[in-house]
Amino acid sequence: MKVVILGSGNVATHLAKALRKINVQIAQIWSYHYENAVDLANKVDAFAIKTLEEIDLDADICFVSIKDDAIPICINHLKAFKGIVVHTSGAVNINIFDGLANYGVFYPLQTFSKSKELSFDDIPLCLEANNANTLQILKDLATGLSENVIEVDSEKRKILHLAAVFACNFTNHLYTLADDVLKEHHLDFSILRPLINETAAKVQSASPINVQTGPAIRNDEQTLQKHEQLLLQQPQLLEIYKTLSNSIKKTR
Amino acid sequence: MKVVILGSGNVATHLAKALRKINVQIAQIWSYHYENAVDLANKVDAFAIKTLEEIDLDADICFVSIKDDAIPICINHLKAFKGIVVHTSGAVNINIFDGLANYGVFYPLQTFSKSKELSFDDIPLCLEANNANTLQILKDLATGLSENVIEVDSEKRKILHLAAVFACNFTNHLYTLADDVLKEHHLDFSILRPLINETAAKVQSASPINVQTGPAIRNDEQTLQKHEQLLLQQPQLLEIYKTLSNSIKKTR
Repeated sequence: MKVVILGSGNVATHLAKALRKINVQIAQIWSYHYENAVDLANKVDAFAIKTLEEIDLDADICFVSIKDDAIPICINHLKAFKGIVVHTSGAVNINIFDGLANYGVFYPLQTFSKSKELSFDDIPLCLEANNANTLQILKDLATGLSENVIEVDSEKRKILHLAAVFACNFTNHLYTLADDVLKEHHLDFSILRPLINETAAKVQSASPINVQTGPAIRNDEQTLQKHEQLLLQQPQLLEIYKTLSNSIKKTR
Repeated sequence: MKVVILGSGNVATHLAKALRKINVQIAQIWSYHYENAVDLANKVDAFAIKTLEEIDLDADICFVSIKDDAIPICINHLKAFKGIVVHTSGAVNINIFDGLANYGVFYPLQTFSKSKELSFDDIPLCLEANNANTLQILKDLATGLSENVIEVDSEKRKILHLAAVFACNFTNHLYTLADDVLKEHHLDFSILRPLINETAAKVQSASPINVQTGPAIRNDEQTLQKHEQLLLQQPQLLEIYKTLSNSIKKTR
């Protein structure tokens, strides 16, 4: 199997490395910034291309792993592509590829940062395709990468993506805000790391609603007020503190 | 060493078990609900007491591990206590014990749920005491429980506790909200578990600000608007979505 990857961001990078690991040939990598394509290509024995005109139309799969709003720009260059065209986005409908022959979605429900290696073994790979044969080819490839392959249509994928924003992007931002609180008082973020680990570990077997802790769920008004006092000089943090505490109280 | 534990909640339970493991004798357990004291006492070879008058005044340490606003109620019964009195709260000043002989704080910076076992090995144990000898005794005990023992005064402890609310309590609530989003569409929370794990794993070595992902940090207005559309029927989720997305944008 021979694939082309459009993109050199977090998802493209991890996907390219994971594919290379299972001996898929990465024929070409294109990126809006050519030097990034070269960087990634060097890591996965691929060839960096400068323009979309150079895409190898005989490749088996083209992964479009670029910013959501840039996807339409590629499509014109993929009209003659003989294999399968997939994007890797949580939020973009499959019908963006309407008019192509074989296409689909290959969405890894995970957070990727270039600086951190990770295994694809348990990453949910959410697949969708415009025909059964295409779906089967994507499934065969995906099961080589992960034990967690599922078929998800565009509507459900949008919901998964939205839920992931709460569980991951917003969560990481709360870590940042916690870090801000500590920095303000010359305390180091590392002290929170065991707590952050355990918070995630707890919900690996439990439902989060059943393991909520803290002053808001205990209705501990005294502590809530003390915390709000501490945040008086940081109105944005105070607003988030109040909003989330009130939201927790409603789950009591 | 012989200790008394007042309380039978999440912290008291885990602390009692951890102390028992290192062969500290738990002499007595008191709880506002006697049956809970009996339950916990059975687990750690202790004796459940019905009233605070029964506290063994010759014990070495009395752990006050009850709701913050209930702590003052105990103090009258501890005036004649010969050992050290400590509370385990993040938010209560050490001076609540002013007037006792030897006292301090023994605050484990961790989230505890009765349903989940955990190791104390890496839990930051934040200690404070009203004299050097008391501090040394607490340190000796704490280093038997954890490799992560630190001295923290009441002001800094309050900040740690506030930061922990962001990093843990609010984070767990975001997991709950993600679960709500999924449930609304008959999708299962388990699909988010690898993502939640990786989100926590990423910041074990990195600063959270450096590994932020998602539509808000990319300034991907198209996706942000799609998500807001999906939340139109859930005004509380929509408010949280907007508040946190705006907060992330400010870190760009």
